[in-house]
Amino acid sequence: MSTMSFSLEPAVYRIGEQLARLSAGRTPTLFERRWWSQTALNLAMQDSAFKTQLFRFIDVLPSVTDDEQVMTLAREYLGDGATPLFVTRWGLKAISATSLGARLSGKAIRSQVEQMARTFIAGATVEEATPRLTDLWQQGRACSVDLLGEATISDREADRYRDRCLEALTLLAQEASVWPSISLLERDHLGPIPRVQLSLKISALSHHLDPIDREGSYRSVAARLRPILDLAMRLPASLIFDMEQADTKTLLIEIFTRLFSEPSYKAYPHAGLALQAYHRETAQDINGLLSWVRQRGVPIAIRLVKGAYWDSDTIRYRQRGWAVPLFEHKVLTDANYESLTHLMLSQSSLIRPAFGTHNLRTLAYIEAVAESLGLPPEAWEYQMIYGMAEPFQHAVTQHGRRLRLYTPVGDLLPGMAYLVRRLLENTSNESFLRKEYVECQTLRTLLAPPVLERLSQKQPFVSQPTRTQEFRNEPQRDFSQADSRMAMQQALTTVRSQLGRQWTSSSEELRLTGPLIESRNPGRPDEVVGRLSGASSDDVEQAVRRAVRAWESWRDTTAERRVEILHTAASLMRTRRDELAAWEILECGKPWREADADLVEAIDFLEFYAADWRRLASPKRLGQEPGELNQRLYSPRGVTAVIAPWNFPLAIPTGMVSAALVTGNSVIFKPSERSPMMGYWLTEILREAGVPEGVLCCLPGGPDIGRALVRHPEIATIVFTGSKDVGLGILKDASTLIPGQQIVKRVLVEMGGKNAIIVDETADLDDAITGVVASFTGYTGQKCSACSRAIVHAAIYDSFLVRLKEAVLSLKVGNPEEPGTQVGPVIDRRAQAKIQDYIEIGKKEARLLMDGTVTGPGWYIGPTVFADVTQTDRVAQEEIFGPILAVMKAASFQEALTLANSTAYALTGGVYSRSPANLELARQRFDVGNLYLNRPITGALVGRQPFGGHRLSGVGAKAGGEEYLTQFVVTRVISEQTLRQGFAPAE
Amino acid sequence: MSTMSFSLEPAVYRIGEQLARLSAGRTPTLFERRWWSQTALNLAMQDSAFKTQLFRFIDVLPSVTDDEQVMTLAREYLGDGATPLFVTRWGLKAISATSLGARLSGKAIRSQVEQMARTFIAGATVEEATPRLTDLWQQGRACSVDLLGEATISDREADRYRDRCLEALTLLAQEASVWPSISLLERDHLGPIPRVQLSLKISALSHHLDPIDREGSYRSVAARLRPILDLAMRLPASLIFDMEQADTKTLLIEIFTRLFSEPSYKAYPHAGLALQAYHRETAQDINGLLSWVRQRGVPIAIRLVKGAYWDSDTIRYRQRGWAVPLFEHKVLTDANYESLTHLMLSQSSLIRPAFGTHNLRTLAYIEAVAESLGLPPEAWEYQMIYGMAEPFQHAVTQHGRRLRLYTPVGDLLPGMAYLVRRLLENTSNESFLRKEYVECQTLRTLLAPPVLERLSQKQPFVSQPTRTQEFRNEPQRDFSQADSRMAMQQALTTVRSQLGRQWTSSSEELRLTGPLIESRNPGRPDEVVGRLSGASSDDVEQAVRRAVRAWESWRDTTAERRVEILHTAASLMRTRRDELAAWEILECGKPWREADADLVEAIDFLEFYAADWRRLASPKRLGQEPGELNQRLYSPRGVTAVIAPWNFPLAIPTGMVSAALVTGNSVIFKPSERSPMMGYWLTEILREAGVPEGVLCCLPGGPDIGRALVRHPEIATIVFTGSKDVGLGILKDASTLIPGQQIVKRVLVEMGGKNAIIVDETADLDDAITGVVASFTGYTGQKCSACSRAIVHAAIYDSFLVRLKEAVLSLKVGNPEEPGTQVGPVIDRRAQAKIQDYIEIGKKEARLLMDGTVTGPGWYIGPTVFADVTQTDRVAQEEIFGPILAVMKAASFQEALTLANSTAYALTGGVYSRSPANLELARQRFDVGNLYLNRPITGALVGRQPFGGHRLSGVGAKAGGEEYLTQFVVTRVISEQTLRQGFAPAE
Repeated sequence: MSTMSFSLEPAVYRIGEQLARLSAGRTPTLFERRWWSQTALNLAMQDSAFKTQLFRFIDVLPSVTDDEQVMTLAREYLGDGATPLFVTRWGLKAISATSLGARLSGKAIRSQVEQMARTFIAGATVEEATPRLTDLWQQGRACSVDLLGEATISDREADRYRDRCLEALTLLAQEASVWPSISLLERDHLGPIPRVQLSLKISALSHHLDPIDREGSYRSVAARLRPILDLAMRLPASLIFDMEQADTKTLLIEIFTRLFSEPSYKAYPHAGLALQAYHRETAQDINGLLSWVRQRGVPIAIRLVKGAYWDSDTIRYRQRGWAVPLFEHKVLTDANYESLTHLMLSQSSLIRPAFGTHNLRTLAYIEAVAESLGLPPEAWEYQMIYGMAEPFQHAVTQHGRRLRLYTPVGDLLPGMAYLVRRLLENTSNESFLRKEYVECQTLRTLLAPPVLERLSQKQPFVSQPTRTQEFRNEPQRDFSQADSRMAMQQALTTVRSQLGRQWTSSSEELRLTGPLIESRNPGRPDEVVGRLSGASSDDVEQAVRRAVRAWESWRDTTAERRVEILHTAASLMRTRRDELAAWEILECGKPWREADADLVEAIDFLEFYAADWRRLASPKRLGQEPGELNQRLYSPRGVTAVIAPWNFPLAIPTGMVSAALVTGNSVIFKPSERSPMMGYWLTEILREAGVPEGVLCCLPGGPDIGRALVRHPEIATIVFTGSKDVGLGILKDASTLIPGQQIVKRVLVEMGGKNAIIVDETADLDDAITGVVASFTGYTGQKCSACSRAIVHAAIYDSFLVRLKEAVLSLKVGNPEEPGTQVGPVIDRRAQAKIQDYIEIGKKEARLLMDGTVTGPGWYIGPTVFADVTQTDRVAQEEIFGPILAVMKAASFQEALTLANSTAYALTGGVYSRSPANLELARQRFDVGNLYLNRPITGALVGRQPFGGHRLSGVGAKAGGEEYLTQFVVTRVISEQTLRQGFAPAE
Repeated sequence: MSTMSFSLEPAVYRIGEQLARLSAGRTPTLFERRWWSQTALNLAMQDSAFKTQLFRFIDVLPSVTDDEQVMTLAREYLGDGATPLFVTRWGLKAISATSLGARLSGKAIRSQVEQMARTFIAGATVEEATPRLTDLWQQGRACSVDLLGEATISDREADRYRDRCLEALTLLAQEASVWPSISLLERDHLGPIPRVQLSLKISALSHHLDPIDREGSYRSVAARLRPILDLAMRLPASLIFDMEQADTKTLLIEIFTRLFSEPSYKAYPHAGLALQAYHRETAQDINGLLSWVRQRGVPIAIRLVKGAYWDSDTIRYRQRGWAVPLFEHKVLTDANYESLTHLMLSQSSLIRPAFGTHNLRTLAYIEAVAESLGLPPEAWEYQMIYGMAEPFQHAVTQHGRRLRLYTPVGDLLPGMAYLVRRLLENTSNESFLRKEYVECQTLRTLLAPPVLERLSQKQPFVSQPTRTQEFRNEPQRDFSQADSRMAMQQALTTVRSQLGRQWTSSSEELRLTGPLIESRNPGRPDEVVGRLSGASSDDVEQAVRRAVRAWESWRDTTAERRVEILHTAASLMRTRRDELAAWEILECGKPWREADADLVEAIDFLEFYAADWRRLASPKRLGQEPGELNQRLYSPRGVTAVIAPWNFPLAIPTGMVSAALVTGNSVIFKPSERSPMMGYWLTEILREAGVPEGVLCCLPGGPDIGRALVRHPEIATIVFTGSKDVGLGILKDASTLIPGQQIVKRVLVEMGGKNAIIVDETADLDDAITGVVASFTGYTGQKCSACSRAIVHAAIYDSFLVRLKEAVLSLKVGNPEEPGTQVGPVIDRRAQAKIQDYIEIGKKEARLLMDGTVTGPGWYIGPTVFADVTQTDRVAQEEIFGPILAVMKAASFQEALTLANSTAYALTGGVYSRSPANLELARQRFDVGNLYLNRPITGALVGRQPFGGHRLSGVGAKAGGEEYLTQFVVTRVISEQTLRQGFAPAE
């Protein structure tokens, strides 16, 4: 490819010069010296911290209705007396004192930002936009209308988007029917093209667009697309699928080809989709589409863009630990764009190529390729964004090329998000427009080819982490990958084939003598998942005796060996990952992703504690004085009892057990009687990894076994995760010295929460509602971190409730073996009954917004929402451990915080807000162990979000944090006098 | 001075060449290629780590009687299969394979080392040595005999040394009477000089040589010196005081001048003392002595040496944080020596100058100065060490100068310590002999003057600490300084003048309504130290309510402000240091140094926790992923109850209270009813430093007040130091949830110990006995860290008991206001009665070795020792908290460890051993919180030896360590999603 590129360079430069001449004397609207935005944008381009604050401020603006509050937020974001440093440091003083400051008012700011938004948005409605579209047509520019909207978080919202599309098509077609005829815009090399084009945001057509669930996603999207398509075919109009985040790319292409293979739509010649040059797979995708088009026999349009989700996709993939599927460097994307230009133009008999670009070099390059292929000018079109790069719009039009403007239509509120993306694009270091119109680079530079050799001198777009960390989180499965989905299906089949078996511990040492424990599938209670021997109280005595004996050599095992065993166990879990997840899906009723997340967390605990113990195991020297050597060492405490819960049946016990083991303690592990199989697997894996007989003993059983362990004089440490009542009982029991006891017991208890999410009036409601729903319904609310209270500012309370209800109504409740299931059953009949009791209590105390009644053979409870809950209501105070949400209204952020803090728990909490001051207040005053800002409140990651609460939520250091392991050891300080006969070792 | 020096250089070089010629063809015995020591010493000179091991091995040898064990120790120190790295790394393979290895046996090693020792020691007894001394005299060399001995740790041993001196003088005089007459050796410029000279180690003449106690030291030393002097005058013989460690220098000079000012000894013309050129004050000391000699009218001898305690003095002063009074660089010492040469030779009408040196340059320099002053050769003498620098001995004798050899006589055991010092001297980088005979430097280099300008290129002898630490331990008072002693006396007078007063809290907030508390002087129980209002249970309720309220603003106070308050409190304590120590002496019966140590520790706690909170207070970022900001923060827990003991009545509560305060908690502080005045002062100081009203409340009172605090629902944290029974009761009480309680109480308890010191058969008994005595009698045994068991290897059990008894018998028990007092009273009648009960128990269980009965009006209990105690005896199991020691016999080190670990406590422990394997075993298996190797087991320093135990000794992190503060906080993790509208702040 690169040799081809080089041979085109003279043509590229010639055409580039020509286009530049045509564009001369014009400035893009955004860079015109019209209003303060120009000053602000200049500042933003000089300073990325200021840019962040400015764009965040612009982002929050539409949600604020009160002028006073606009001023407050302006101060919070852009500084004033409260943060004078900001003002002086970023040179904002200049604006506030002159152009901006003199007439600064909330109203003025709003109107200025609205004006800026209007640069890019043709109108709030199609009616409002049509005069602009007509003007553009008359100037020889076609449009592709994009209906801006909030994120779709419910079926109702998806329906609404469908209806808006239908309306828009009708209106546009009506309007366009009276436009003058312009041949270049109405016909290409393959035939006539409609005057009207609509760009479709497919994710807006379904709340269920989820790559894990191909079939469900297709059904949901296609059902809403068909009426749109039917209409488009009638009018006619062309329809283009916009491309979105990388994880839905394959799904969208699949939907596209499947839909347009349906008999009714197979002959429709005006379908198209956008593809992104920054994606590494795009050439492959185009080739796939070409094959499909050949089969179908009817062409499609392909709009090639560079891609608009680079930052967020890169960040999200990195956060998940997945390989980023996008090119890391802009120059690689540019090169790929040019390469794809060849591919598309050379296949113009099958596709209608459309090129989205605002880059002079790219324009000239496309021209040069087309010229080299001898293509007529109607064989492709350019697409640019409404309001952007007007000089180039002018130039290509003058040059006799077809130009289509991607034209957003919609409200200011969703429009603001669109504005911010455009501003980011224009002000980016890599922006061609910035280079030409702000930095005034030479034409030679601007037209230079994307040279890969320059890469080494370039910074990547986002800086890399600079510290090398020993520990890295295990990535969750990317279920947008077909092989991941197939592996899980396969594992489910394998596990299903073993259901009902009786399992026996591989330990030769101790044969349990208690009653048989039967594990049942919560989704199908008649199905026995597995049978295991339970422990008797005699077994407890035996197990402790063996553990004491085994400890003698285990504590002398080297730290390296113990660390190695944890790494081995992690490897075994990785190898058996899908199978273990499948067991968990069947034993605990977890949806796929939740089960996979539990596996990931278990692996993380093993790797994190292994790495952390390596850090802690070697003696640390204290002080630097000569003649004395003071060292701090850690020694194991003794036998540890681990009393584990069922809700994270692998991860939580893995963390507790492995922490105790790696630090040199022996362990008696009582898995929950609700998840004995997962306890069995954990024990087997640790044994296989090398934990010696006696050092780890698994005693499946109920509360009596737990009590016997807690009261045993030779148990040095007790680690419990479960309910508050049991936890407090353990604390009390363990504090009484028993004859023969040699150490004060250490008790680590994690006891639950009554976790609140505060949503203030500046919150991004799309995010807030999604976050609240995910946090209260994830694993059917059976997480100690789950949200059970939403405290919502009065100003948005009603609209919050409306959208919340729609979102909850749209959840898929059902069998967790189905990949599309969002909410499965609860763990058992007892849990179901308790939750149902609370629902009855709630009905008396508050207003039932959503009734979660679900019928079925399994232990189902659908997500249930109470509104107008007050602080003292039981549903606002007591942990329910089910998908029950209490929504409370607060008059102010301060009141919301007071409400949030008004339980005895302090585990997790969340805030959705775009007010820096409120976020800061929450940092200081929201009294929880794990506070989440602008994100869901479950899913703490080992190492990054060490997990645990205080008050009556727990005692002990956070799991997955660097203070955790020291709880399993005693600290010894050894001080040696090294001075002997007047001499000490040289230091 | 330096100009004088320079003008002497031609003469120095001329004479140096002449002396070098006279010494030519000879090698110092030590560097002769006679036996393996030469190889070993060469290796040692190349590698300091090997040198340490080799010299340590040599040091331990005499204590080992068994050949097998010699081999074992050789392997432990010098490596074998167990530590192959050592062998290969240090090239020891070479020796062990060839010269050493082939015929390596315990016996061979012993005899080789003994042979090496014999190089430096003229004989085990004076009888054995006299033939050598006679030979030397006949070769024209006089002697100064030095009687080697163990350290004197009892009066009996001091008497023994006195007797040995008397015997030696008699024998030597007898022998010398038949020596031929040698004029140069028998007459100097001031008259006749005796044939016999004895060098006296003054510290061997008294166990009580202690600069804090001038008068007591003088009485004790002078009483034993007088008979020696009387004899020396009769014979006649000359007597020279050796100079020792820097902290006794001034005391020794005082003793010298005071004794020789006594009428009986005023005319004695053969007294002398050694002075050290490495000491910065020596010129001043010589001038002081010259004035005194002028008054006295009779000359003295001054032996100028460079000084032999540089390493140990430097290390000990640094460890204490005191300014080192010695020159840091050898070149400065050399320059000072030359400068002092001028001073001494120019005053030879008043003093008999003697120059101790083995340095050719120095010899030549002295000659040059004497020549320039025109002194006759008999006006000064040279002193060299027997067995060292024989070529120079030869040269100066040939040159017609008087030479006296410093000649040690004594057993191999104390002799080995002497040998090691000589080996260190010879193998040091700075050793002239090494430079000439091993490194073969040129004569020009060897004779070059000590040039100060070269300093910058030189390394100091001991490397400096490389890390800058924010925290530095406050130095204890150096009571060898007269002004320190005077300040304390003055403070005692001031405090005495205030005894009996009633004190009122400066707090305006809470007037206590409980009964009046009277504090009494344990040394004089009829003396009321002070009166204070006690708290009632109503007051507890009030105080907690106020503390909860005050917490609201205190927790919001910046970390900087709280840190600043601690620093201010530390400054206030420094300012009022002697006064506070005086209060403690009177209220708690602590001897001066113990009271001062408590002040120091209190200051350390304030400074350490301040520095540590500065480290911890700022949020810590977790993970490096883009788009998310995870931070760990610490928030205060709430109201903290501090229930404090009386035995460290300032330090311990200062630590507990300041840790709670600096982390943002409010504090209710209950000082012990046995030390209410110290509690009062602490509270006043913290208030004065800026702790706001309500944030700190002092409630003096008894157990009822403690109980009320423990059971209060609004107390979040309880910090207790005291007895095991009370501690366990608190743990139990606090674990029951009380209605209204909002947080699980955290209880930090420090509960005591039954601490053992193991003394194995390789131990340095001088150190071991001193260490055991200090550890069990310090503050009359009333420290939780105190030793209460000594576990002694059977091989040395009997000799240990004999010396231990003598050492204990020699302790000064009495009024702690007297600076010389080593053991004061116990705290009160109750404590005395309890200890007396245990003495009665012990008498039934074991053999009473030392009865500590002391009569007196105060609550005295003298140090009491039981021998043959067995594991199950109550005196071996129960904490007595008094100066009671149980001595137990162990057949092996392993058994000793088992015995040591056989109590329910695990606080402190100690080992005296010179077996690396045993020390390593102790590191692994001695199950205590603070283990001390080859040093006393009390006196843990903040930061360097964080303090605390486990098992039933305590719960919680170590005080004065970097894990302590986190106990007073809850950990909060805040995770912000920073990605908004597709962009995140640049990282």
